[in-house]
Amino acid sequence: MKPADRNKAEGILYTDMYQLTMAQVYFRLGLHERPVQFEHFFRSYPDYGSHKSGYCVNAGLETLLDWMMTSRFTEEDIEYLRAQKTRAGTPVFHDDFLAWLLENGNFEGITLCAIPEGRVVHPTVPLTLVQGPFAMAQILETALLNMLNFQTLIATKAARIHEAGRGRLLMEFGLRRAQGRASTEGVRAALIGGADYSSYVGASRVLGYPPKGTHAHSIVQAFMALGEGELGAFRAYAEIYPDDCLLLVDTINVLESGVPNAIRVFEELRAKGHEPIGIRLDSGDLAYLSIQAAKMLDEAGFPDTSITLSNNLDELVIWQIITQIQQEAPRYGMDPDKIINRLTYGVGTKLITSAGDPALDGVYKLVAVQNGTEWVPAIKVSESPDKVLNPGQKSVWRLYDKRGKATADLLALEDEDPRTMPRVLLHHPVMDSKWRVVDQKDLSEAEPLLVKVLDEGRLVYDLPTIEDIRRQREEDVERLDAGVKRLLAPHRYHVSLSRRLWDLKQSLIHALQQNTQ
Amino acid sequence: MKPADRNKAEGILYTDMYQLTMAQVYFRLGLHERPVQFEHFFRSYPDYGSHKSGYCVNAGLETLLDWMMTSRFTEEDIEYLRAQKTRAGTPVFHDDFLAWLLENGNFEGITLCAIPEGRVVHPTVPLTLVQGPFAMAQILETALLNMLNFQTLIATKAARIHEAGRGRLLMEFGLRRAQGRASTEGVRAALIGGADYSSYVGASRVLGYPPKGTHAHSIVQAFMALGEGELGAFRAYAEIYPDDCLLLVDTINVLESGVPNAIRVFEELRAKGHEPIGIRLDSGDLAYLSIQAAKMLDEAGFPDTSITLSNNLDELVIWQIITQIQQEAPRYGMDPDKIINRLTYGVGTKLITSAGDPALDGVYKLVAVQNGTEWVPAIKVSESPDKVLNPGQKSVWRLYDKRGKATADLLALEDEDPRTMPRVLLHHPVMDSKWRVVDQKDLSEAEPLLVKVLDEGRLVYDLPTIEDIRRQREEDVERLDAGVKRLLAPHRYHVSLSRRLWDLKQSLIHALQQNTQ
Repeated sequence: MKPADRNKAEGILYTDMYQLTMAQVYFRLGLHERPVQFEHFFRSYPDYGSHKSGYCVNAGLETLLDWMMTSRFTEEDIEYLRAQKTRAGTPVFHDDFLAWLLENGNFEGITLCAIPEGRVVHPTVPLTLVQGPFAMAQILETALLNMLNFQTLIATKAARIHEAGRGRLLMEFGLRRAQGRASTEGVRAALIGGADYSSYVGASRVLGYPPKGTHAHSIVQAFMALGEGELGAFRAYAEIYPDDCLLLVDTINVLESGVPNAIRVFEELRAKGHEPIGIRLDSGDLAYLSIQAAKMLDEAGFPDTSITLSNNLDELVIWQIITQIQQEAPRYGMDPDKIINRLTYGVGTKLITSAGDPALDGVYKLVAVQNGTEWVPAIKVSESPDKVLNPGQKSVWRLYDKRGKATADLLALEDEDPRTMPRVLLHHPVMDSKWRVVDQKDLSEAEPLLVKVLDEGRLVYDLPTIEDIRRQREEDVERLDAGVKRLLAPHRYHVSLSRRLWDLKQSLIHALQQNTQ
Repeated sequence: MKPADRNKAEGILYTDMYQLTMAQVYFRLGLHERPVQFEHFFRSYPDYGSHKSGYCVNAGLETLLDWMMTSRFTEEDIEYLRAQKTRAGTPVFHDDFLAWLLENGNFEGITLCAIPEGRVVHPTVPLTLVQGPFAMAQILETALLNMLNFQTLIATKAARIHEAGRGRLLMEFGLRRAQGRASTEGVRAALIGGADYSSYVGASRVLGYPPKGTHAHSIVQAFMALGEGELGAFRAYAEIYPDDCLLLVDTINVLESGVPNAIRVFEELRAKGHEPIGIRLDSGDLAYLSIQAAKMLDEAGFPDTSITLSNNLDELVIWQIITQIQQEAPRYGMDPDKIINRLTYGVGTKLITSAGDPALDGVYKLVAVQNGTEWVPAIKVSESPDKVLNPGQKSVWRLYDKRGKATADLLALEDEDPRTMPRVLLHHPVMDSKWRVVDQKDLSEAEPLLVKVLDEGRLVYDLPTIEDIRRQREEDVERLDAGVKRLLAPHRYHVSLSRRLWDLKQSLIHALQQNTQ
């Protein structure tokens, strides 16, 4: 695909056809400029099959804002739409609607509230509230979900891997196995979630992080084919990168060839006044090889070199490697913690694709429609009670207990403020008879989570840097209960409804049942 | 991310840092313009956990060529690289290398052979051969893998879904859950593999397919909030799209509200001389609801309307739905085949993300290096025999039996031609004592699979249209044995080595073992 074509595809037409056909229905009925409110939330945490997340890390907002502020219907887009035909050969889109779209087909009427990037977030909690003219709020749906679903998915995976690796250096290595150009925004999300660097040069460049890497097997292979061998390859590399020398030691045999050759080159480097970074292991039993390599490096006088692990890692594999080192290292007379503290991780495929669960199930639902001066809440029922929408315009609060740990998120009506309530009722979102009451004095804080980002298309929010967002994520993860952070079978974090929101939901369901009988 | 930033990220710097640091090593040693050959192949079929593919559909080549022909190091890229620092604060890249890169940092020296898009392909078979100066062939690796891995993955998934749906109309609906901008090339791959249309307007536009869609729940919800109800929403939609009327019937209750309301609107349409398209079901037991909805539509005089199914479909779910309809329809006095033949499918998340296996494990390996006038084969060994490289420059052949079915792919040396052999020896790629011999008279055809695409950077290949590629895929899938196409536990297709390639591989492994002892 030519870059010009890609720009055409990914402008305002980065949406589903039905958004445009529905917008035309609203136009025909005079509803296209009717103020409505949509809300976006995800239904469930990523479930990777053998393990599952107990929290998500919110990401993607800045990318969405960039898209919204540069995307609008151009003459060329309109001409493309004008050429679309129905089965009967007539135009799908009529001239009056297209004229309106050319004039008004932008996001200047949209007011958007959002939970900031880097915040820990949970299912059913509105992450963005989109208020504005029905037609454009509808057209926005697809791009919003595409960008926010994906980055939240990847930031969440990165946070898990970062936690499993105990915060040790984490490098994102996934470009070659990423889902095509998802990689660019994927790197951004990985950095937000906990990766420290990426190997992808172009993304690192535009995000302001230095790209990182080691070397590949091919350089060793080339030297072997030319009769020079692994040692020759290592020497050549060290000669050129004496201060950044990190050698991949598994092209032939890690313990018999790679590590001994690396040590020889490290000694030569040191003799010239340079300290090596370390080695990389990319195959075999990484726990066993880490212990043995650490032992050899220690004995050769390089106890401070790092050992970078790669090869299809994810949070479970890293956890397993660390556990195995803890169990086995003492048998070889090694201190396991010292080994674990010299590990760094290069994680590719499973981070950048969120392997195990490659999509977050974020949805975008109509929650209110303005009728005259009044906002009418909208609902959608479902055979599955979990899927019944929480209707109406809301506020979102995070409640912290006396230890400062997050204890629940509370969805309330727009005008409710739990800080003014002596006792806060937390109603189960689905089960009629299940609620608890928390005394204000047992809370250390009730924090509103949503901030206003766009006010009728105008940015009214200071966009944080990625470093700011990373700090926010660290703080929020720190304030989670350990049980919620477990890699397997995490404890379920509570998302509750206020009494008034619960009552509204019940009354709407009841009214709907009356109407359909 | 701003569009300008994205273009910076996705130009020539759409690569891993280590490709650039290795290129500088080759430069320093005078190897950077040494002709080498890399080959790209994948190691294993996608494995979706509960099911697995027995073939892949090759895709992505044109996207890669577009990238190669528009990407080169610009002054600005070079300045960015010049600013990169080592741990010691010195520049990572030296001026002489950067000067060379500015002058020569493009793909004009690359000769590329490839298996065309739409061909059915198998593990370990070289899908592309890249020959050219070492430095640029190395830098190409990341982008090549990124683009070819992803599109082959998605085309393969689409082919499976298309087969499971018995070739009935398949619409790609995944943009909202796609991995960000992967969606654009993902739609291309989905069309190649078997999707007929996409809902994604922008991608459909640049690929030359009309975008398709129905409508969403939100329009029904809006009418309900305004006191008009589902019937009002359907009427409004039908009024505007009398010839393209496809109604989503599950916002309230499919059989009690959605289908009766749809039938009423269909009758009104027909009275005005229009025939409806049909209905869409997006929740509940899709097999049961299809049977009941078909019965209601038949009885109302709309036996030719289609029933579009959506909601987290993949090849297994579609297979299950069809099986259930076959078993249950007769109980309701319905002909199952008639129901199955009116189904069409809208498949989102699981197609566009290849859910279950979100990455193809394609790799790019050095197989030969020129030394003087001679090509020296390169090898990489591994503790796992499967992962030992097939060395040297190769030709690739597909052998068809007398029924015209593909019986094996044969990897041979470059100068071998099985068409000239009275008997063709097919050696197992790993096991010493396993081979079979096929008589020429038992073959209907031996087809070379690789074609020359770039000759020193110049395009020497007529790029087929997506429709051409789709026809190629249909033909190739048709020529697979039924066992290879099974959704579960497919029969393993044979990829074999010629005697001479086997011997070369063994001699290189042997030599390597000698050297490391």
